[in-house]
Amino acid sequence: PPSKLPNVGTTIFTVMSQLAVEHGAVNLGQGFPDFPVPDFLVDELSRAMRDGKNQYAPMTGIPALRQAIAAKTQRCYGRKVDADAEITVTSGASEAIFDAVLAVVRADEEVIVLDPCYDCYEPAINLAGARAVHVALDPVDFSVDWQKVRDAVSPRTRMIFINTPHNPSGAMLDASDLAALADIVRDTRILVLADEVYEHIVFDGRRHESVLRYPELAERSFVVSSFGKTYHCTGWKIGYCIAPAALTAELRKVHQYNTFCSFAPAQWAFAAMIDAQPAHYDELGAFYQEKRDHFARQLASTRLRTLPVPGGYFQLVDYSAISDLPDTEFCRWLTTEKGVAAIPLSPFYETPPPGQRLARLCFAKNQATLDAAIERLQKA
Amino acid sequence: PPSKLPNVGTTIFTVMSQLAVEHGAVNLGQGFPDFPVPDFLVDELSRAMRDGKNQYAPMTGIPALRQAIAAKTQRCYGRKVDADAEITVTSGASEAIFDAVLAVVRADEEVIVLDPCYDCYEPAINLAGARAVHVALDPVDFSVDWQKVRDAVSPRTRMIFINTPHNPSGAMLDASDLAALADIVRDTRILVLADEVYEHIVFDGRRHESVLRYPELAERSFVVSSFGKTYHCTGWKIGYCIAPAALTAELRKVHQYNTFCSFAPAQWAFAAMIDAQPAHYDELGAFYQEKRDHFARQLASTRLRTLPVPGGYFQLVDYSAISDLPDTEFCRWLTTEKGVAAIPLSPFYETPPPGQRLARLCFAKNQATLDAAIERLQKA
Ligand SMILES: CSCCC(=O)C(=O)O
Ligand SMILES: CSCCC(=O)C(=O)O
Repeated sequence: PPSKLPNVGTTIFTVMSQLAVEHGAVNLGQGFPDFPVPDFLVDELSRAMRDGKNQYAPMTGIPALRQAIAAKTQRCYGRKVDADAEITVTSGASEAIFDAVLAVVRADEEVIVLDPCYDCYEPAINLAGARAVHVALDPVDFSVDWQKVRDAVSPRTRMIFINTPHNPSGAMLDASDLAALADIVRDTRILVLADEVYEHIVFDGRRHESVLRYPELAERSFVVSSFGKTYHCTGWKIGYCIAPAALTAELRKVHQYNTFCSFAPAQWAFAAMIDAQPAHYDELGAFYQEKRDHFARQLASTRLRTLPVPGGYFQLVDYSAISDLPDTEFCRWLTTEKGVAAIPLSPFYETPPPGQRLARLCFAKNQATLDAAIERLQKA
Repeated sequence: PPSKLPNVGTTIFTVMSQLAVEHGAVNLGQGFPDFPVPDFLVDELSRAMRDGKNQYAPMTGIPALRQAIAAKTQRCYGRKVDADAEITVTSGASEAIFDAVLAVVRADEEVIVLDPCYDCYEPAINLAGARAVHVALDPVDFSVDWQKVRDAVSPRTRMIFINTPHNPSGAMLDASDLAALADIVRDTRILVLADEVYEHIVFDGRRHESVLRYPELAERSFVVSSFGKTYHCTGWKIGYCIAPAALTAELRKVHQYNTFCSFAPAQWAFAAMIDAQPAHYDELGAFYQEKRDHFARQLASTRLRTLPVPGGYFQLVDYSAISDLPDTEFCRWLTTEKGVAAIPLSPFYETPPPGQRLARLCFAKNQATLDAAIERLQKA
């Protein structure tokens, strides 16, 4: 029989990473740091294993970690969340998104996503039997036209996805965006899924406008985050979802039969880390801002034009001075011929803006890696 | 709106483990070992973290682990599987089952499950929009009446679940069972999901009849296993699925957008472990057989009657000499009043056999734990 996901191929991240390996390219494609996890975390994880924390964690996550997340949430966003009823630890933010969608979205409903959007959203929506309704962000500054979102709402709309800081653009929603979203969902049955995995990677003194700051939104939202981006361990796959008790109860029904729990020793390590080094969060913006600024300065010596990066660890570049190729072909060419892997934006659109000539470069890398990439990009 | 999974509550494993903690009961309920993970694995995992294996693993699992699984599969079951196209590493067997069902089962189809069955099967089926069709195993020896399975097949049947060694009963399918299953599915579009997580915990010289031994079945099966049971680390949640390339391709479409990859450092540790200590598998049966035999001998001093345990790490006991309570109430009473947590069977049935008075005790425990439980059970 035909596939249930006929349009799903191998994710562009895997495609480009494989191409990077095959061609010995500097991999600025798939988003992951190439510097170490904090020693403290590694030590605590090793200790947890030796202490015998190797059996099933509670399905919801170990209490110490949920409490640490609750404390951090209160400190960062001024919101008191109930560690028992409103927080669920998952196998990465991706599992949290998958569970949330399957838990509440029904066949023939609609979910609004803002393009370009992360490529796991739509397959989850489709597996729930629902349809993704795509609204494009501004092709220049990646801002949301809320009137377009409002126009996309129908009686079947069950959920709206937002993502701030935004992958791939780095754009961040501000208070007026969240007010506009609140206006749209007020007095409807529409839920919000807020993908905030880059919440602590924000620059130039900007404030991350978490949905959790806005009670009117928080009461109908699944807010998803992950430790992978915050602690340089994307391969550990420990994330979490904060949602009101009633939504959390539904999400957990799926989570408990999907992965049941995530790698237990890491949960102990993160609980210890958050308690011991609460400043890590606050320092992360400065740590990445230095990388961003250095990388942007170096890119000025290439024919790539940089776009502003309010948050996240990706630099968008306009390559139209180098090539008129469509972005996927350009990124393949850059990887195979010039030795730098990048991610095109068109795979994250239902309808890519015609003539857009942008590529995404990950700057979560050691200086030596970025230098090597720049040297190659200068020759492009 | 009403829940998409209105009948799902908290899984009985969590309920009984919580009750065990609250009442200081010896926990022979939820299935997990209380002895340590092999040191070698812990050391290798720590080493992998220090070696920087902390970023995304390939979505399919690291090649070294897939190759180790392929080698082990050939050695154990004489089947050559393609490590690249037929093996996918998942976040536990549970995620593999969830992904497989969502990948291929469609709305309004039917999936046959054999009761009593593990409680994650039906929610996955329901989230795919499909219906579980329950066929009861023999209430005494938990054998399959294949004529009943054949009668349950309809034009909508998309999949049949089997589980050998069987949780909770320990029953094992033999070659004639698999022949009967092959007869049923031949020339149909019915797929098989074989849950074989206890594959290496088999007793008395019995042979585990993996579906992988039978090409006619293997070519239409998702075969699911996990390292949690084999290496005493149920909380690490690393499992895998072996399936023909076409089925694997569909499963991966879901997996890549569900969890994407599982905890990367553990994948390196398992790859090293399987290569370095291939005998671990073969020794596991003897290791658990000693526990099984010792525990059964001790149980003879209680009023619980033991049932045969061909495989797995659970002992079923008939408690009718102690109590006439239904099993869920009996297990609650045993936990709260007698201080030994056990798992009732009725939650694993659509229609529990009337008058069945069985409880499941996990013997994957240190001798001291089993001794403590026996002392308490003697007073029941
Ligand atoms: C799961 S691979 C994708 C990693 C990522 O978040 C990105 O590159 O955007
Ligand atoms: C995920 S908790 C259940 C553990 C288990 O496999 C069992 O007890 O049967």
